Amino acid sequence: MGDPVGGDRQGSRLYFDDLHVGQRFTSGTHRLDEARIKTFAAEFDPQPFHLDERTAKTAFFGELVASGWHTAAITMRLLVDGGLPLAGGIIGAGGEISWTKVTRPGDVLTVVSEVEEMTPSRSRSRADRGMVRVRSETRNQRDEVVQVLVSRLIVPRRGAAAQT
Amino acid sequence: MGDPVGGDRQGSRLYFDDLHVGQRFTSGTHRLDEARIKTFAAEFDPQPFHLDERTAKTAFFGELVASGWHTAAITMRLLVDGGLPLAGGIIGAGGEISWTKVTRPGDVLTVVSEVEEMTPSRSRSRADRGMVRVRSETRNQRDEVVQVLVSRLIVPRRGAAAQT
Repeated sequence: MGDPVGGDRQGSRLYFDDLHVGQRFTSGTHRLDEARIKTFAAEFDPQPFHLDERTAKTAFFGELVASGWHTAAITMRLLVDGGLPLAGGIIGAGGEISWTKVTRPGDVLTVVSEVEEMTPSRSRSRADRGMVRVRSETRNQRDEVVQVLVSRLIVPRRGAAAQT
Repeated sequence: MGDPVGGDRQGSRLYFDDLHVGQRFTSGTHRLDEARIKTFAAEFDPQPFHLDERTAKTAFFGELVASGWHTAAITMRLLVDGGLPLAGGIIGAGGEISWTKVTRPGDVLTVVSEVEEMTPSRSRSRADRGMVRVRSETRNQRDEVVQVLVSRLIVPRRGAAAQT
């Protein structure tokens, strides 16, 4: 299933022309901090199961879990930090996201990404870029998939230097 | 197109049985703060076009814009704060997200949601809930759609009191 590439590769950012279907990337890791789970939730997702252990026990998940949007944001950080070393940065037009398992305080997350589809732009005015569909699985320390994100990314072609 | 319902309705949370396809909800508003755009990006999406006006000018968007994940997180907050008054909270299994326009410092966001599909659980062990597909458009102060989120939500049925 493609060639695994280490996450932290400063200075070797990849253009559309450097990618191929099946190519894989592995990010660094991020440990979910309990205090940050609560402050993130207080700002963006203030529901009892993200805010307080005691209340969480009688709510939907039965325990304190991170907001799915927090997991998504951490995933993005891991991708930006070398987990997906694209020239021009990680520019998403959108995607599909699924939260397959809860994330808890102390969980250590890693993102494994794979190029699923590549579409060069058909329009002449956008010949300097292509669309790349990437499947990113966020996994915990037990290698369980906690989130699947299938992103549609805009990636510049070689020679499109103005965008990098 | 259904009945518009005001956003801020404490104490009138809706169960699966109270919803119908076409039902609409409008959230309150949130003004995007420039400093928060940058600190959110510094933590979760540290790319030049989210961090610094000067660098942003020569990067992809040509200006400082918020991370799409920041827009998504604000959308969630607006939904939780009465924009989608569901019994049991807003519990998403996943969804599709598209960023259709950039969001900028000073933009004032509102979320308009519509129930698109309702599926009662077929499994007896989960007869206490249903799945609801909701389309949430995040709009700016010019009524331009900046994000579309189509969520799959788990909503309790009436009588499933343990979960509320």
